[in-house]
Amino acid sequence: MASAFVKRVVVVAAIVVGVVGVTMTTVAAKRNGQAASPSVGSAGIRLPPRYRDWALVSVAHEAGSFNDIRAILGNDIAIRAYRKGQLPFPDGTIIARVAWSYVPSEENDKVFGKAQSFIAGAPTNVQLMVKDSKKYAATGGWGYAQFTKGKADAVDAAKCYSCHEPVKARDFIFTKYAPS
Amino acid sequence: MASAFVKRVVVVAAIVVGVVGVTMTTVAAKRNGQAASPSVGSAGIRLPPRYRDWALVSVAHEAGSFNDIRAILGNDIAIRAYRKGQLPFPDGTIIARVAWSYVPSEENDKVFGKAQSFIAGAPTNVQLMVKDSKKYAATGGWGYAQFTKGKADAVDAAKCYSCHEPVKARDFIFTKYAPS
Repeated sequence: MASAFVKRVVVVAAIVVGVVGVTMTTVAAKRNGQAASPSVGSAGIRLPPRYRDWALVSVAHEAGSFNDIRAILGNDIAIRAYRKGQLPFPDGTIIARVAWSYVPSEENDKVFGKAQSFIAGAPTNVQLMVKDSKKYAATGGWGYAQFTKGKADAVDAAKCYSCHEPVKARDFIFTKYAPS
Repeated sequence: MASAFVKRVVVVAAIVVGVVGVTMTTVAAKRNGQAASPSVGSAGIRLPPRYRDWALVSVAHEAGSFNDIRAILGNDIAIRAYRKGQLPFPDGTIIARVAWSYVPSEENDKVFGKAQSFIAGAPTNVQLMVKDSKKYAATGGWGYAQFTKGKADAVDAAKCYSCHEPVKARDFIFTKYAPS
């Protein structure tokens, strides 16, 4: 049985390790340009608590350096607008791009009898586009944010916006609704 | 301006073409082994009217002869069970595999500066697994159905079941929930 002294040393050590760990994480986060507050992204955008319940807009695979497989989800306002073909999207629209690493599935391949199956591996990050035509007027009416493991990353909305410019005619949204 | 006689001929011809068309479609459907009723699949399973609003379980790409990109959606019972890790899935669970042809996106590739983007093209079909441990006891408690353009295809549930046997330990469900 550990003595009271040993217990106290262990507790103090644990606190020190904890404090140092948190400080280092914060420093690293700041160095990586992450937002100061872990849950608030660029332009004050937060990850909506129930975004994972949203309906599906479409799916995609990005090869290259992304090497991910992704789903595009939309809140109710987004989905209604998509299904009606309403452009521009109304204020309040939120579109979430959720991505996972693109990994082969040995389990599925065995059943199919050949290597052909790719599934979602570890989550990479979640990107949001939030429509507020006044607040985000400088970037086409859309705010941009990114979250990794639920924590906000710093993003340069002007850069996001410039990449989305080619689809200005579709209100800067690349993904089309996938009917089924 | 067309005479009343010509108009009548056109109307009669349209009706004849319509009736012949419907009859031929029905005959073709029966030849292809489709269910007699267009909306009721194997084992009496219907496509739930709002399945496209269901939350996402995961995404996948099947290469090979499928060459599709797919989303796996679940009704509320399915999603709750998935998130809790509940096995077996409770009766009432419905899991929908929605698939589209796998097509490159020139539009996206232009923005990324290289050929790397693959998106959902035309819908292929929707497959359902419906849990009813009594009704579908012979196939592991799951009923299987497939719909193309909303119409039921004939499926051999015993064949579906045999392919799902390797994942009996996960209640015959291949797809794992993809957290994000």
